[in-house]
Amino acid sequence: MNYEIVIIGGNPAGGTAAIAAKKIHEDKSVLVIRKEAESLIPCGIPYTFGTLNNIEDNIKSIEPAKKMGVDFLIDEVISIKSDEKLLTLKNSEDITYEKLIIATGSQPFIPPIEGNDLEGVVAIRKDLEYIKSINPILRSGQNIVVVGAGFIGVEMSDELSKICDNVSLIESMDSILPLAFDKDMITPALEVLLKHGVDVRTNTMVDKIIGENGKVSGVKLKTGEVIKADRIILSIGYRPNISLAKKCGLEIGIYGGIVTDEYLRTSIDDIYAVGDCVEHRDFFTRKQSKLMLASTGASEARIAGMNLYDLRVIRQTKGSIAIFSTTLNEISLGAAGLTEKQAKAEGFRFIIGRNTGVDHHPALLPNTSPQIIKLIFSKGAGVLLGAQIIGGSTTGEMINILGLAIQKNMTAPELAIMQYGTQPMLTAGPGNYPIVLAAMSAVQQMGN
Amino acid sequence: MNYEIVIIGGNPAGGTAAIAAKKIHEDKSVLVIRKEAESLIPCGIPYTFGTLNNIEDNIKSIEPAKKMGVDFLIDEVISIKSDEKLLTLKNSEDITYEKLIIATGSQPFIPPIEGNDLEGVVAIRKDLEYIKSINPILRSGQNIVVVGAGFIGVEMSDELSKICDNVSLIESMDSILPLAFDKDMITPALEVLLKHGVDVRTNTMVDKIIGENGKVSGVKLKTGEVIKADRIILSIGYRPNISLAKKCGLEIGIYGGIVTDEYLRTSIDDIYAVGDCVEHRDFFTRKQSKLMLASTGASEARIAGMNLYDLRVIRQTKGSIAIFSTTLNEISLGAAGLTEKQAKAEGFRFIIGRNTGVDHHPALLPNTSPQIIKLIFSKGAGVLLGAQIIGGSTTGEMINILGLAIQKNMTAPELAIMQYGTQPMLTAGPGNYPIVLAAMSAVQQMGN
Repeated sequence: MNYEIVIIGGNPAGGTAAIAAKKIHEDKSVLVIRKEAESLIPCGIPYTFGTLNNIEDNIKSIEPAKKMGVDFLIDEVISIKSDEKLLTLKNSEDITYEKLIIATGSQPFIPPIEGNDLEGVVAIRKDLEYIKSINPILRSGQNIVVVGAGFIGVEMSDELSKICDNVSLIESMDSILPLAFDKDMITPALEVLLKHGVDVRTNTMVDKIIGENGKVSGVKLKTGEVIKADRIILSIGYRPNISLAKKCGLEIGIYGGIVTDEYLRTSIDDIYAVGDCVEHRDFFTRKQSKLMLASTGASEARIAGMNLYDLRVIRQTKGSIAIFSTTLNEISLGAAGLTEKQAKAEGFRFIIGRNTGVDHHPALLPNTSPQIIKLIFSKGAGVLLGAQIIGGSTTGEMINILGLAIQKNMTAPELAIMQYGTQPMLTAGPGNYPIVLAAMSAVQQMGN
Repeated sequence: MNYEIVIIGGNPAGGTAAIAAKKIHEDKSVLVIRKEAESLIPCGIPYTFGTLNNIEDNIKSIEPAKKMGVDFLIDEVISIKSDEKLLTLKNSEDITYEKLIIATGSQPFIPPIEGNDLEGVVAIRKDLEYIKSINPILRSGQNIVVVGAGFIGVEMSDELSKICDNVSLIESMDSILPLAFDKDMITPALEVLLKHGVDVRTNTMVDKIIGENGKVSGVKLKTGEVIKADRIILSIGYRPNISLAKKCGLEIGIYGGIVTDEYLRTSIDDIYAVGDCVEHRDFFTRKQSKLMLASTGASEARIAGMNLYDLRVIRQTKGSIAIFSTTLNEISLGAAGLTEKQAKAEGFRFIIGRNTGVDHHPALLPNTSPQIIKLIFSKGAGVLLGAQIIGGSTTGEMINILGLAIQKNMTAPELAIMQYGTQPMLTAGPGNYPIVLAAMSAVQQMGN
């Protein structure tokens, strides 16, 4: 078979690349090769354990892409022969390509500790069959220990606390979500988790997983304490899937991701890589980063997909910005760019702008939530380096305002006089708009 | 009395100016002179007729400003003697100033039609006593006619439909909210209003208000039809309060607002003006505009307040962007910049990017709303001219993303590859983020 554009992998990055490629190159044939006929929305996976009624409710339909003219082949690529621009497959005949996009994603990192293979120990892989298989296992657990308090660990703990008796969340660093939030900002989220019955333990290291008759029975901490457990979730990060890329000779980075340039071109002509399998670079420092986000992958996928044949959509940012959000019902959390801790570690001089308010005006309107914001600006130039918000249901879009402000290198004085709209039921008040007030508090400090 | 900084008017613009001035000039004495001891949050006024339990729930406290060291005087300024930098007051001794900020706001425009003075005819003035006085009048009405379907008219109609039998909304143009939304976008909002029982009539002109014994009994339309009414709300716009400014000789613009420069300096030294009493200029055309928004006023207030003694916070946008949002419960609406109609009238060549999606992912999560977006880009350069969103509760902050994109002169290709965060419960999906998809649909059209 011959296709002009071939994408290996069909999750957020691969699917988005296919659609972007087809939209901009309508006359080119586009094929997505992926292992699964049906695949899950990865960020929705935690909600298949509580909020959603069926795992199937979280399947991402491929019909819109098909309707656009993207073809799908359910198969596994065995090798990429870049000299011949040819792919060999497990079950199908060879396929040639003009342009190849690798979007093979990532898989959970399993720490090399004793007991990691006991029955009842799971990690959150993203394929449908696996999630289907662990769903009844987790739902039938009485004592669940979640190891790692990143986004997946926090969301899984919170969802499982709705259906399980005892959920413990263990984190080696000094607070939950330590890569996205400074400790001073995350306290309200910690309190909500505790209120939901999650036993959160920070500054806590796991020594090993213990078991009986091949089944997990608990977790032994470095302190010697044992937490009883019949189910363990390992959520301490993901690693790029790069076996295909490695075999074909693509350059691999220090964190094990595929090295690309600004247009997601790899070290071999006409091969691109997007999403979790790529080694990203930080927006501010240009250092390699371990960032893995579906939204980052989708953004890269559009850059690659639209620029396959000529560079028509010029990239103006030279690196990836971590922009996260999540929710624990009562409160939602958003973060963009560097935390104060990271800014300090990277050697930035900075000033902090803060504001505490509410997300409606007047505050007595229904569904009003507190809204706490922290902005980190470089000292001197006053450029926005990072933002953290604890708020209500608008937090996810508010952090996108600040993500955009980072992309545009906006400064504290600019944000202090930015134009915005307000409405009683939808936002904070005109005089109290929190982004602006936090920026103004930074301007005050820049003052003299 | 002597004060260094004096602000006349203490609503969103005046209050914000006082706080900004005091924050940046801590050593200066700051006084706000206003007529009311307690004042309402203006945008919250429609909600005092339905959603809020008490009018008092919508009072804006002056305590935070007082705590910062801003003084308040409840009185009325009679004249500004700019030569002597002196204010004369109704009940107090004269006050001298170094810097004066005029924030006298606006009042409803009462159209010169027959019957406008009948009992039962009201307009939405923003002072507490007036709103207190009309609240029982409107609540006791059986048949209410609202004239003018701008934001106030739409919000009032929707709120009153919760407590009154018959509410009619009359608009002379061909759709509701005609200055903020194109007709093709506003249909879902119109449907919600109709569903809430509001009798919406567009393309409809009022001839006169008719009455019996000095009390309103109906509205006669230009067609001859009479709509029965015991209460009429006139909501067809506001006019700047400029009697003080005029008397003191300040230059007034073509729409009756005070003329200022980019730093809100008036035609007389050391006198500034901010908010509804100012004649704004459009961001794109620099033409004078009738725009009146509390958020616009607050933004100007910060520019003026921080720059009173030296220009330390440089303004980088050279005009005002209309950024609106509102909600009808089931759906919310946001608009920023120019509509398609306005862009056409101003002579822009443009392309339209659209997307229809939902605001959560997967769509089967609770509280998922449709999310429809329309972006207007200039043809050629591809600069974002305007945006309209019909969506859920995040619409107010999403339109602020696009308001910021307008301020930063962002283009369709830039928005098509922007970085953003997504989360199942808080936003659309990574592959379906609507701003990006609408921008990409514009890029497609720019393509060849």
